[in-house]
Amino acid sequence: MPELRQDPITLRWVTIATERAKRPTAFTRTAKAAVAPSAECPFDEGHESMTPPETMAYRAPGTAPNTPGWEFRVVPNLYPAFGPADAAPEVKVVGPYTTMRGSGVHEVLIDSPDHYRDIADFDVAKVDQIIRGYLDRYQAAASNPFVQYVLLIINHGREAGASLEHPHSQLFGIPLVPEAVAEELRGVARFQREHGSCPYCRMLTYEREAGERLIFENDSFLVFAPFASRTPFESWIVPGWHSARFEALADGQRRSFAEALHVLLARLKRGLNDPPYNFYIHTAPAREAAEEYHWHAELLPKLAIAAGFELGTGIMINVATPESAAEFLRGVDEHAAPAQAAAGAASHA
Amino acid sequence: MPELRQDPITLRWVTIATERAKRPTAFTRTAKAAVAPSAECPFDEGHESMTPPETMAYRAPGTAPNTPGWEFRVVPNLYPAFGPADAAPEVKVVGPYTTMRGSGVHEVLIDSPDHYRDIADFDVAKVDQIIRGYLDRYQAAASNPFVQYVLLIINHGREAGASLEHPHSQLFGIPLVPEAVAEELRGVARFQREHGSCPYCRMLTYEREAGERLIFENDSFLVFAPFASRTPFESWIVPGWHSARFEALADGQRRSFAEALHVLLARLKRGLNDPPYNFYIHTAPAREAAEEYHWHAELLPKLAIAAGFELGTGIMINVATPESAAEFLRGVDEHAAPAQAAAGAASHA
Repeated sequence: MPELRQDPITLRWVTIATERAKRPTAFTRTAKAAVAPSAECPFDEGHESMTPPETMAYRAPGTAPNTPGWEFRVVPNLYPAFGPADAAPEVKVVGPYTTMRGSGVHEVLIDSPDHYRDIADFDVAKVDQIIRGYLDRYQAAASNPFVQYVLLIINHGREAGASLEHPHSQLFGIPLVPEAVAEELRGVARFQREHGSCPYCRMLTYEREAGERLIFENDSFLVFAPFASRTPFESWIVPGWHSARFEALADGQRRSFAEALHVLLARLKRGLNDPPYNFYIHTAPAREAAEEYHWHAELLPKLAIAAGFELGTGIMINVATPESAAEFLRGVDEHAAPAQAAAGAASHA
Repeated sequence: MPELRQDPITLRWVTIATERAKRPTAFTRTAKAAVAPSAECPFDEGHESMTPPETMAYRAPGTAPNTPGWEFRVVPNLYPAFGPADAAPEVKVVGPYTTMRGSGVHEVLIDSPDHYRDIADFDVAKVDQIIRGYLDRYQAAASNPFVQYVLLIINHGREAGASLEHPHSQLFGIPLVPEAVAEELRGVARFQREHGSCPYCRMLTYEREAGERLIFENDSFLVFAPFASRTPFESWIVPGWHSARFEALADGQRRSFAEALHVLLARLKRGLNDPPYNFYIHTAPAREAAEEYHWHAELLPKLAIAAGFELGTGIMINVATPESAAEFLRGVDEHAAPAQAAAGAASHA
């Protein structure tokens, strides 16, 4: 069972998940991590028996679970970093150290039966279905009394940590509020105290006026390169109204988010030849009111290595300005010829 | 000139260093980053004119700067992430954002003229010379009134961010105390308040008794796998007496540190076939007394990718226990046949 351990000085947690060492790629050098070809892909249609039994799926009426006929499918991660879901996250103190059972949820959300096409390629209606699936699983994970935080991520491309090529997301339900979110909650409270407003709301106003870091805007969402971008082409998707929770998205807002996410990913894919990236959604903790929080999504292309300087300081070295990255992405046509997308997909083969 | 920008919510800094984008590998996918072969290596003997003029060197009597005859050589980084050294780090506020000039120091410390051998391979006397070089450059950087923190790092192997193969370290003098160190300073103060002792001193006692995470010990230093290891084979080198500053090392202690570092790197190289790693030294900030701090070195092999989960939470997923990693490293003979080392070096070719 995974175990959470806390550094006694920084109070930073790590999860020791030795189950994951059984993955074929666990100790392979990252540069050589294998990506399964389609014939062996456990996420392809007809290969349903290669995954644990599905947790839920959107599928054609009359089709049975764990058989073909699905459009979006959720399965437990075969090598979970958190679990099981029904174990209390007991805390133990050992000498100067603190440890906690790594109980929780770790699911894989498969975009579609298509091995090659992803959110960058689908139409907005299909992306909207995927986001509906995200919301469904958020609510299920948050209903687990041991889960303190729910995180949705996409790792795209092997350099970004994807061990399987077939487009998918991952959902984690974890037994603590992670430091990256706690830090934002403290920052929101401090900004509110010092400036009398939500910093995300303030940024939305400022970025709309400044314009130089804008990438895309629709009726509900602003997509922009953050002022302190950690990597070239880092991009945030922020709701234009104050809202603490992704999982509170109404139907129309959900469709606007689907559009914003699709446009951003399509421009990255067409403009930068399908770069590897990490994506995650930051929402309020599951068991706190946290109404002052402003949920958002962050995307970081994997175009640099966090090396000794970054690890030793916590300061990322970014070799491109967010202004130049945003200018470039504003100029990319997300409706570029599908040949481009196919070339992008092929580069993973 | 590099620019430091602060995220208004987390107060996390990044440095935007567009000069570095001119490096040949700046936007290359990390998996394909080129390593210069020896014939083009700017750090080889006889290639002194390929670097900026040297800042200092340990060289044979009678040899001129920037000519052959050196044993250890320091040059400014050709693509600095911080600089110049004589510019005040002016702070500006722009709307909701804060920005600072990225002034400071960024040097390259070349281990020796040997393109293939490094600290894992040298005898302790040679490693001691390298550490003497580190101390010299620490003191020089700390004497710059704009420098608030001095960080020494080694990036080993291309997966760990090394763009040049020839063994070298890097020294940064930066105009702020980085969050990773500030976090440790807060942690030390909290532990002192709650438990009445330095947490590093407490850990030394506990780890010596427990034994299961020990890797190596000599008269002055303990090498062990930290309880909350972030990656497989993470290792810390901690002085056995309370001391805030690496740069205050006395001659005999310096030699003990050289031995501890050599043994750790030699065991990693022989035991794990020359893995890529990041290494850094955490010492007290240059312009604070910080006597409560306990300096130490941290080494993280690059055997995993920090992906969406790690970026979104700040929680690393580690697939090996530190107890199993330490047991393995205790069993490796650092005096293994040099053929092993040669094989390791060849794997970079």
